[in-house]
Amino acid sequence: MSGIPGSTGTVPRSTALLTDRYELTMAAAALADGTAERQAVFEVFARRLPDGRRYGVVAGIGRLLDAIEDFRFGEAELEQLAEVVDPAALDWLADYRFRGDIDGYPEGELYFPGSPVLTVTGTFADAVLLETLALSILNHDTAVASAAARMVTAAAGRPLIEMGSRRTHEEAAVAAARAAYLAGFAATSNLEAGRRHGIPTAGTAAHAYVLLHDDEVTAFRSQIAELGSKTTLLVDTYDIRRGIENAIAAAGPELEAIRIDSGDLGVMAQQAREQLDALGATGTRIVLSGDLDEYSIASLRAEPVDAYGVGTSVVTGSGAPTASMVYKLVEVDARPVAKRSTSKESRGGRKSAFRRYKPTGTAVEEVVHPANREPSLGPHDRVVPVPLVRGGERVPGLPTLEQSRERLRAALVSVPWEGLKLSRGEPAIPTAFEEA
Amino acid sequence: MSGIPGSTGTVPRSTALLTDRYELTMAAAALADGTAERQAVFEVFARRLPDGRRYGVVAGIGRLLDAIEDFRFGEAELEQLAEVVDPAALDWLADYRFRGDIDGYPEGELYFPGSPVLTVTGTFADAVLLETLALSILNHDTAVASAAARMVTAAAGRPLIEMGSRRTHEEAAVAAARAAYLAGFAATSNLEAGRRHGIPTAGTAAHAYVLLHDDEVTAFRSQIAELGSKTTLLVDTYDIRRGIENAIAAAGPELEAIRIDSGDLGVMAQQAREQLDALGATGTRIVLSGDLDEYSIASLRAEPVDAYGVGTSVVTGSGAPTASMVYKLVEVDARPVAKRSTSKESRGGRKSAFRRYKPTGTAVEEVVHPANREPSLGPHDRVVPVPLVRGGERVPGLPTLEQSRERLRAALVSVPWEGLKLSRGEPAIPTAFEEA
Repeated sequence: MSGIPGSTGTVPRSTALLTDRYELTMAAAALADGTAERQAVFEVFARRLPDGRRYGVVAGIGRLLDAIEDFRFGEAELEQLAEVVDPAALDWLADYRFRGDIDGYPEGELYFPGSPVLTVTGTFADAVLLETLALSILNHDTAVASAAARMVTAAAGRPLIEMGSRRTHEEAAVAAARAAYLAGFAATSNLEAGRRHGIPTAGTAAHAYVLLHDDEVTAFRSQIAELGSKTTLLVDTYDIRRGIENAIAAAGPELEAIRIDSGDLGVMAQQAREQLDALGATGTRIVLSGDLDEYSIASLRAEPVDAYGVGTSVVTGSGAPTASMVYKLVEVDARPVAKRSTSKESRGGRKSAFRRYKPTGTAVEEVVHPANREPSLGPHDRVVPVPLVRGGERVPGLPTLEQSRERLRAALVSVPWEGLKLSRGEPAIPTAFEEA
Repeated sequence: MSGIPGSTGTVPRSTALLTDRYELTMAAAALADGTAERQAVFEVFARRLPDGRRYGVVAGIGRLLDAIEDFRFGEAELEQLAEVVDPAALDWLADYRFRGDIDGYPEGELYFPGSPVLTVTGTFADAVLLETLALSILNHDTAVASAAARMVTAAAGRPLIEMGSRRTHEEAAVAAARAAYLAGFAATSNLEAGRRHGIPTAGTAAHAYVLLHDDEVTAFRSQIAELGSKTTLLVDTYDIRRGIENAIAAAGPELEAIRIDSGDLGVMAQQAREQLDALGATGTRIVLSGDLDEYSIASLRAEPVDAYGVGTSVVTGSGAPTASMVYKLVEVDARPVAKRSTSKESRGGRKSAFRRYKPTGTAVEEVVHPANREPSLGPHDRVVPVPLVRGGERVPGLPTLEQSRERLRAALVSVPWEGLKLSRGEPAIPTAFEEA
């Protein structure tokens, strides 16, 4: 088990109970009736994008592969399961490790409705146990990355700092910081994300620091004494105009940045720029924060803003806190299977996908096809899924977080221009389903 | 450090980096300039309830107190912080443990805009470090519990099963199960929530289990063989009418329950009830699931439903995934302080609160008053905050999760009837702020 970092270094842990009870009862019943060893293919996909979104961004694959390595049943887990499954199943679980194959869209890749984002192949019992863990991680991280990518587009090259830890579960915050960074954010406020994922961290002071001191200029001088003039002073505790005067009085015109966290941010930015320039602080940057989302960021495009701090909206997926992906059994012993009652129908059979591109590099269509049929790729087309796990072992050389970040940057360039609009619309490219 | 349970039993861990960088830089700067020892009071409150909500439910206090006990800087954390703060601050952090006092609304208590949900008292440096951890836990857990309570009201006594783990971060899922149970849900699908918090777990089989087998009745027989007839058979993989026939054929009329996860649930429930009764399975219960929220649950009140499974909507706070609470410095060395720029103003000074009640037990008003003034309590009024931590030690005898569940049940009975409506409206009772 690779474990999570702790105060005493790396400590072993198990992810095996981060799952739903019914996966264990299904595995146990299948072990009892002999179907557990049937070869199964499960597929993760989203039936649709969040309302009005034009693309989604796959995230969480790296975290999922880590979590699968830690998906083992130790004594503590088996003790807990003693009243859930029978003794034979407990014996089987004691030796469990995932021994199958996983293919999937790499992190930072775009996905569309029906894209086979993850394909898990193995015995039924091996593969059914991963349902909830896979969905939890992919649904959360993808929701955040998908929202974050729109903010990066809206910011049009200006850096974004993720500072939403306080608005989401304390561990979700770490994963959200990672997903936002993957999507192009420059930094995070979250220190654990810095440690665990190597993401640059940012942050200097809150209003509390000014309020702690007898007056604002004393607080600013203290901050400069500790952090130097390469810091960001928060100037809106009392009066912003006075705050900027105090900031430059304390730091001199070489002050790195000021931050404004309230008020009419566009107007404030303009006034602050003029005032800073008049004070000779022409290089002092302006950071805006305070309930920003992709729409308010876009509306600030014409203002003299140098960076944005984004909180609630990014960690909650800006209205779409889950990607609503599902984990569906699509094949048993090479036989396609699918639910076919009144609604929520699925397409049976193992699938793969490729993306068609124009010679110019613009994406045209997502083609989902039966995996056993060789795709008819044009000269510019590209197969999307890649092997992730083979025989239970992670495939070597999978992309780093930095490489995934770069992949998304390239992928967004390939989207037709309407696909990058923030307004509600259809998916940027259609998905074509080739029949078996 | 109390630690989290792992596959090798309890393993130590630190929560100290589940925070924002600026808390560390503020503490370091305050240590350097001598203000770190000033006596500070921080207050957690929500400026408003989520849009149109009539009450909120406090949740996460127990988890927060656990997390504060684990908020220690070991070697691994200090190493990570070496480039964030100066050596003197690192020395101070090495000895850090929270030594102050905490008061707060008990879990399961209602809160309203401005309610002082948590009050943290201590030196500035001691107390400032807890900002993000406190907010992450309270904002998440409270958001889930507040949504869940509305679903419990909508279900009007019918049991609810939380099954949303797959729609949220894998650790947030465990906390969400706890918050939903606190709010009155009967059980969760999440096994780790069963282990960590002692919550009843539920779940039997997914569509995959039916698809795995050669036909539906074989799958049902296999499930019965493993789990007995006190199980729930999922009957909507193919044709629901046929599914119910197969279910009773496999289990006999003593079958515990069927589950329907798709289709027009109200119509399905009626038809299923008639069919089950005709088959002599008059005691077989009907469980509905599939994108349910408080509104769809309420709309099913007249139908023959015995239990609901709720996923996405409860773990994502049904449109309000965060409670938007803030952590504000309100007092320094007994002097009230408050931000007072263009927006987001706060009320300075340490506060307490009591709730006024009619003689009938109906709540009338939330009164927030300066903490140094004795409240003028009427005979039916009640002080809301309770001591949680004294001198860094948890106050003995704090409520259990079961007791918090009971507290909420009682609190909801006290809400004026309009306050329990699902429609958008004003807070169920107004908040009065007594000036200092």
